[in-house]
Amino acid sequence: MKTRAAVAFESGKPLEIVELDLEGPKAGEVLIEIKATGICHTDDFTLSGADPEGIFPAVLGHEGAGVVVEVGPGVTSLKVGDHVIPLYTPECRECYSCRSGKTNLCTAIRSTQGQGLMPDGTSRFSLKGKPIFHYMGCSTFSNFTVLPEIAVARIDAAAAFDKVCYVGCGVTTGVGAVINTAKVEIGATAVVFGLGGIGLNVIQGLRLAGADMIIGVDLNNDKKAWGERFGMTHFVNPKEIEGDIVPHLVNLTKRRGDLIGGADYTFDCTGNTTVMRQALEASHRGWGKSVVIGVAGAGQEISTRPFQLVTGRTWMGTAFGGAKGRTDVPKIVDWYLSGKIEIDPMITHTLRLEDINKGFEMMRAGESIRSVVVY
Amino acid sequence: MKTRAAVAFESGKPLEIVELDLEGPKAGEVLIEIKATGICHTDDFTLSGADPEGIFPAVLGHEGAGVVVEVGPGVTSLKVGDHVIPLYTPECRECYSCRSGKTNLCTAIRSTQGQGLMPDGTSRFSLKGKPIFHYMGCSTFSNFTVLPEIAVARIDAAAAFDKVCYVGCGVTTGVGAVINTAKVEIGATAVVFGLGGIGLNVIQGLRLAGADMIIGVDLNNDKKAWGERFGMTHFVNPKEIEGDIVPHLVNLTKRRGDLIGGADYTFDCTGNTTVMRQALEASHRGWGKSVVIGVAGAGQEISTRPFQLVTGRTWMGTAFGGAKGRTDVPKIVDWYLSGKIEIDPMITHTLRLEDINKGFEMMRAGESIRSVVVY
Repeated sequence: MKTRAAVAFESGKPLEIVELDLEGPKAGEVLIEIKATGICHTDDFTLSGADPEGIFPAVLGHEGAGVVVEVGPGVTSLKVGDHVIPLYTPECRECYSCRSGKTNLCTAIRSTQGQGLMPDGTSRFSLKGKPIFHYMGCSTFSNFTVLPEIAVARIDAAAAFDKVCYVGCGVTTGVGAVINTAKVEIGATAVVFGLGGIGLNVIQGLRLAGADMIIGVDLNNDKKAWGERFGMTHFVNPKEIEGDIVPHLVNLTKRRGDLIGGADYTFDCTGNTTVMRQALEASHRGWGKSVVIGVAGAGQEISTRPFQLVTGRTWMGTAFGGAKGRTDVPKIVDWYLSGKIEIDPMITHTLRLEDINKGFEMMRAGESIRSVVVY
Repeated sequence: MKTRAAVAFESGKPLEIVELDLEGPKAGEVLIEIKATGICHTDDFTLSGADPEGIFPAVLGHEGAGVVVEVGPGVTSLKVGDHVIPLYTPECRECYSCRSGKTNLCTAIRSTQGQGLMPDGTSRFSLKGKPIFHYMGCSTFSNFTVLPEIAVARIDAAAAFDKVCYVGCGVTTGVGAVINTAKVEIGATAVVFGLGGIGLNVIQGLRLAGADMIIGVDLNNDKKAWGERFGMTHFVNPKEIEGDIVPHLVNLTKRRGDLIGGADYTFDCTGNTTVMRQALEASHRGWGKSVVIGVAGAGQEISTRPFQLVTGRTWMGTAFGGAKGRTDVPKIVDWYLSGKIEIDPMITHTLRLEDINKGFEMMRAGESIRSVVVY
C-alpha cells in the first residue's frame, strides 16, 4: 500500500513529505493508521545529526495514536478497530528483563529496533524500491505504520487521538519518572529542572503523588505560569538569584526542624550535564533521590564528588518513565479521561503533516510546549 | 584523670605514646575504658594529611570496644560496667534525620564532631594545659575516652573486645552496605571491588543475604583465598584478563535467558574513582545498583555517561553501612556471637599500644586485614 509520510532523508535537512510504499504486517505485526503524532525533542536530536545512533533515510516520530487497520498472522491481543498508542519501549512479557519485574526495558526486539528495522531484520517502508528505515520502532510521521504486537498499547476509544498521542512519550516519561522511578510519597519536597514538556509532566506527576513542595527551575520566566498551571508551588530562575543555585535550593527546601535542607526528590529535564549535577547536589543528605530524564549530547558525562553519594544521595535515571507500555500506558490514558492528569493545555499547536517542519522550528524556538500533527 | 594515648601531633608523622589529661564526663556523657581498638584506613587517611578536614594534634581511632566506667549527669541508657562500642555516627533518635527513618546520618552533634570537639564545644583531652582534639567523636587510640551517650552502643558482655571492636567500623560498614543500603535479596548476583577489610565484610554480608554469585575483584591474587574464606564464589584479577574489566564482568554475570548481563549489585571498596565507574557500569541494565563505600581522595570526582543511569542503573553510597549505631551495632555483635558472621579470622594481628605505628605500617603494606591494639 501507499502512505503519506514526512521523511528525514539526511541529517540537518527539513523533513520531506512524500508517498512511500508500505508493506503489510507480517506474523506478530499490526498495521496502524496514525491519527495524530507529537513532535518531540528526541526526533530533533536525531534529525540534527547529534544522535550517534541516527540512521537515514528514516521515518521519524515516536509519539503517536491511531487505529489498528490490519493484523498479521498470530496476533492475539489486538484486533482491527482497536485504538492504540505505539510503544518505543515494547513489553513482550517474556524476555529476561520483562520477567524480572524490575525494569520496563524489554529486550525482545532491542537490536533490530536500534538498526531501524522490524524484528525480522527488514523495513516495511520503501521509496522507489529502496528501503526507508523505521525509527524507535514507531515511525509515527507516517500516516500508516507497521509495529510488532508487543509494541502496541490498546487504549480506551473515548480518548481523543490529538491529545493522548502525547502519552506515547512526554506524559508517560514525566508522570512515570515520579511514580515508577522515584516513587514519590505524599508530603515530599521536589525540584524540577527545566519546565518544558517533560518538566511540566513531572510537575503534574508530583501533584498526583501528593508532594508538598514542587519547585520549578527555569531560565525563562514565562515558564512560571506554565508550572503553576500544573501544580508547581515555587519558581526559581537561576539568573535572578544571588550565588549558586544549589545552596539556594537546599535552603528553600529546609523544613521545620531540619538543619540540613535539600529536596527529597529532584528531576533533571534539561539534558544539560551541569544541571544534572546540580540536581543531585540539591537533593537531601541521607535520602535524596535525583532522577536523570533529559538526554545529554553524545559523549557528555556527569560528574560529582563521591562524597555526595556516600552521604546518602542516590543518582538514578529513567527511560519512558519506567512505564511498562502495554500495562501502564492504558492506565495513564484512563487518568487523563478521569481528570487525574491534564493534557489539553500542553498541546499548544496543532498542525497538518505538510507543516511539520514548522512544528520543529517552534519547538527549537521554545514557542510551543507540544505541537501535534493531525493526519 | 590521666590516660595513656597514641597522639597524632602533626600530619605525616608517627603517633606518639604519651600520658594525657582527661576531663571526666559532663552532662549526657560517659567515660569509657577502651579495651581494644582496630586500626583503619580512615585513621591513616587523616594522619597522612590527605583529609581536608583533619585537625591536629588529635587522638585518632574510631573502631573500639570497652566498658563504661563513669556516667555524667542525666545519662539514662548506660550504666557503669556496660560493655560498649563507640559510634562515630551517633543515633540521637530526636533530630530531623533520625526521625525521618530514612537515614543513619544523625545530625545532633555533627558540627562539633567535625571540629574535633565534644558537643559543648570543648575537648576533654589536654596535654600540659593545651587541648588535644577528639577524632570522629571516638578517639579510641586513648585507653580512656569520653563520648556523648547518643554515640555509644551497648553490646552483649559475652563478646570479646579484641574481636568486636571491628564492629565499630569495618564489619558494620561492609555487612551494612549489603543489608541496609543495597538491600540485597536472596539469589542476587554481586561484584565486590577491592578485597581488603571492607570488601571481605561485604562478601560475608552477601553470603548472609543469600546471594547466588559473589564475584571478588582484586589486583592481588593472595586475596582469592581470603574472599573464598567468607563466601566469594568467583575471583577476577583485572591484570589477568584480556581487555576491559567491565565487559568481562557483564559477561560473567549473564544468567540463563539473560541477553544483557551485569550484576544485580556492585560495591566499590577501593576508594578509586575509576573503579567506582567500573562498578556502576558492570551493574545490570534496568535494575543494577552500585554502592560506593570507599573514600576517595580530596577533590576527586566520579563520572559516567548519563545514559548509564537512564538505562536503569542506580548509583548510591553508604556511610557506616547505613547502620543506626545504637540499634544495629548490638544486633551485629549478636550475629557474631551466634556464628552468622565471622570476625576472628579477619583480625590478623594483635598489638600493644606501644606498637601502634607498626600496625599502620602493616596496613599500608597490605600485610594485614585488620590489626587490633589491645590495651
